[in-house]
Amino acid sequence: LRRGANKQLLNIIKKTHMADLSIVFENLTPPNQEKLFKLLDNPDDIGLLFSHLSEKTFVEFVKIVDFDKLVTVFDHMASDDAAELLGCLDEELSDKILSKMKKEESYNVEQIMSYEEDTAGSLMVKDYVALEEDVKAREVIEALQNKYLDVEMPFYIYVIDNYGKLVGVSSLRQLVLESPDKPLKSFMATDIVSVKPYTDRDVVARLVSRYDFLAIPVVDDDNRIIGIVTVDDVIDILHETATEDMLKMAGVGEDYVETQSLLKGTRIRLPWLFASCLGGIANFFIIGRFESTLAQLTGLAAFIPIIMGMGGNIGTQSATIVVRGIATGRVNIRDFVKIISRELGVGFILGVTYGGLIAAVAKFSFMAEPFSWALSVVVGGSILSSMTVAAFVGTAVPLIFHRLNIDPAVATGPFVTTTMDLISVYCYFTITRLLLGF
Amino acid sequence: LRRGANKQLLNIIKKTHMADLSIVFENLTPPNQEKLFKLLDNPDDIGLLFSHLSEKTFVEFVKIVDFDKLVTVFDHMASDDAAELLGCLDEELSDKILSKMKKEESYNVEQIMSYEEDTAGSLMVKDYVALEEDVKAREVIEALQNKYLDVEMPFYIYVIDNYGKLVGVSSLRQLVLESPDKPLKSFMATDIVSVKPYTDRDVVARLVSRYDFLAIPVVDDDNRIIGIVTVDDVIDILHETATEDMLKMAGVGEDYVETQSLLKGTRIRLPWLFASCLGGIANFFIIGRFESTLAQLTGLAAFIPIIMGMGGNIGTQSATIVVRGIATGRVNIRDFVKIISRELGVGFILGVTYGGLIAAVAKFSFMAEPFSWALSVVVGGSILSSMTVAAFVGTAVPLIFHRLNIDPAVATGPFVTTTMDLISVYCYFTITRLLLGF
Repeated sequence: LRRGANKQLLNIIKKTHMADLSIVFENLTPPNQEKLFKLLDNPDDIGLLFSHLSEKTFVEFVKIVDFDKLVTVFDHMASDDAAELLGCLDEELSDKILSKMKKEESYNVEQIMSYEEDTAGSLMVKDYVALEEDVKAREVIEALQNKYLDVEMPFYIYVIDNYGKLVGVSSLRQLVLESPDKPLKSFMATDIVSVKPYTDRDVVARLVSRYDFLAIPVVDDDNRIIGIVTVDDVIDILHETATEDMLKMAGVGEDYVETQSLLKGTRIRLPWLFASCLGGIANFFIIGRFESTLAQLTGLAAFIPIIMGMGGNIGTQSATIVVRGIATGRVNIRDFVKIISRELGVGFILGVTYGGLIAAVAKFSFMAEPFSWALSVVVGGSILSSMTVAAFVGTAVPLIFHRLNIDPAVATGPFVTTTMDLISVYCYFTITRLLLGF
Repeated sequence: LRRGANKQLLNIIKKTHMADLSIVFENLTPPNQEKLFKLLDNPDDIGLLFSHLSEKTFVEFVKIVDFDKLVTVFDHMASDDAAELLGCLDEELSDKILSKMKKEESYNVEQIMSYEEDTAGSLMVKDYVALEEDVKAREVIEALQNKYLDVEMPFYIYVIDNYGKLVGVSSLRQLVLESPDKPLKSFMATDIVSVKPYTDRDVVARLVSRYDFLAIPVVDDDNRIIGIVTVDDVIDILHETATEDMLKMAGVGEDYVETQSLLKGTRIRLPWLFASCLGGIANFFIIGRFESTLAQLTGLAAFIPIIMGMGGNIGTQSATIVVRGIATGRVNIRDFVKIISRELGVGFILGVTYGGLIAAVAKFSFMAEPFSWALSVVVGGSILSSMTVAAFVGTAVPLIFHRLNIDPAVATGPFVTTTMDLISVYCYFTITRLLLGF
């Protein structure tokens, strides 16, 4: 790019997929980005390039770019991609672009932008094929060759009745196989799975992956088709929701923290650690209340980490199983009692195993002391109760959150581990005081 | 089903998608499963039903089913699905089925079964369209109508040369749009992205989702096409790998623990907790070594939970960001130094913030004591060092594991949290001894 060997460059660019070019683009200086941009003349390609750029690069780049060329690019983009990109820009600029775009395109984009984020409406494209039920197979192919030239994914042909209502679906594959004179209604499938524009994107993803669809139609409340969500968007949804769930579980917010900015990374993580900090302070005061107990047997403090650790780990295990089970549909809220009792059972068995093991360690470490038997019972009992309670809490909280329509992934974050730390320590000292009488 | 009202039932079944019927099927008693099975006569449908069943139900059901009908079903199934299901059965039975299947089908299935699990080879289907470059658009459509009737997803037409090598790709959509007399080579795309049969499934998923493909061709070392992996399999891969990563991070093995069996759930989780248990015992001995320090100031014990908790949480945050970043391709191993120094920075800033906060709590709680200033420095310094070290370890370990080709998700499991617990506690008491002189 530096030498300005444009012709060779152009050849290379033509052979490069825009998804790959976007990585090169990200690493160029703004003047070079502009040079590269000038070399590209196919608005479809540029649109594809834009949709692969990071939000930051795109917003910066748009400022220095030729406005008319920008409008042309947006005119050629799939309406869901255009809506997403325009949503990143400040309102003034996006309004300016929309006002210059072709009427039909800008109408579609504005409609998509009007739906809430993370709903089917915000993800759908307007490029679908919808024909009436009397249209013959041959006519459908003709329509594809003329009217629907720019449809991105014409794999399904949606069939509508006189009122525009969705009544059936056929596929490009079926069209090729049927005799040319048959009307759509004679071979279309009538068991249609559709979603509403306000359907949550997770539901859309679940339906598409469940039935192995390439696209799913979005219909309004009168069952008129208004768009489709395609399988490539579903793949993006799956990536994003899995990332979100993991980040929430670790308490790092929802959005992936960009690796560039130090301060932003700190700011996002700060509040989540506050829960853990408050819990720690609470724990400090609980232990403070038992200072006289500790003073009589300093060795008691040495068991604090193991009791906290075992409870925390088993709680995280249970919560992860339940959260992921809910997300993939393997855990059903109707089995509430069954799931809880099973996890309680697992917690109890594991608690007996490890409680016994650590009780033995306690017994041998304090062999010389007269209270070594009592101490081992205290330690073993604390491990057992803390693991059982942690398994219960780790299972119950996400299930209850799910029922209350709160995202269960939040439930395994620092809040729950902190709660379990508190319970563990409290159980431990209470049992100590009861059994050892300090 | 109980009343034997077969006709109505059959009507309902015909209207039900097999993905939904599989849920009903799971909850039926074996005799009723058999009755339902007898009602189904389309082997394609039954194949679809089988592929939606859980492994357990399928293995049980196969035992009671009519063998010849079973063979017919497997003959009609997509070869990747058939290979997966046969892999669940014991070898004797699967060999018996394979030997009765049609030669061509069983050859395909056996080939797929010969590839290692989680590679492109084990996921591919043999149902693809591959034609030579001189074939004309019209002839392609004719071939689709005759020869390739049972191809599941003929959205791409792969183009091969005289030696069978993959040289181009066209789409069903393009075919419909091109004039009927043009040969494939005049309009095919030549920038083909393909994978080898031994390519890891994660790589396949990344390519398909990056380029928004509906399928990706699998070629042998001579660039001859031997199968395709379709987008619906990629969706399954994404689901599974996200689940696996989460379970590994929580230390619950790799495979989703079925919610049915108490003992199996316990057995899978037991070894992972052992790491945590060993770490706890090590911590017990570390604290034991500092017993004289603790005896002089019992209040020191009260800070153990908060120091462990803050370190553990920030470590989990860093590890999750890195693990998920690696999985989605946002974190690049080449940026090793940059990522580590950034996370160290975040750890330090957060450490100063929370260290200061908790130091203040320490100062006020022990206000009356002469050493309250020193103690607050000890506590604050311990929090700072533990959080900085934890951020470093949480970032570095998954990156190093990734470079060593060990799955980084394992790195955030109990192993790392336990290590961080040990480091936190050790730092705390060492700093105490140094500064307070106990």
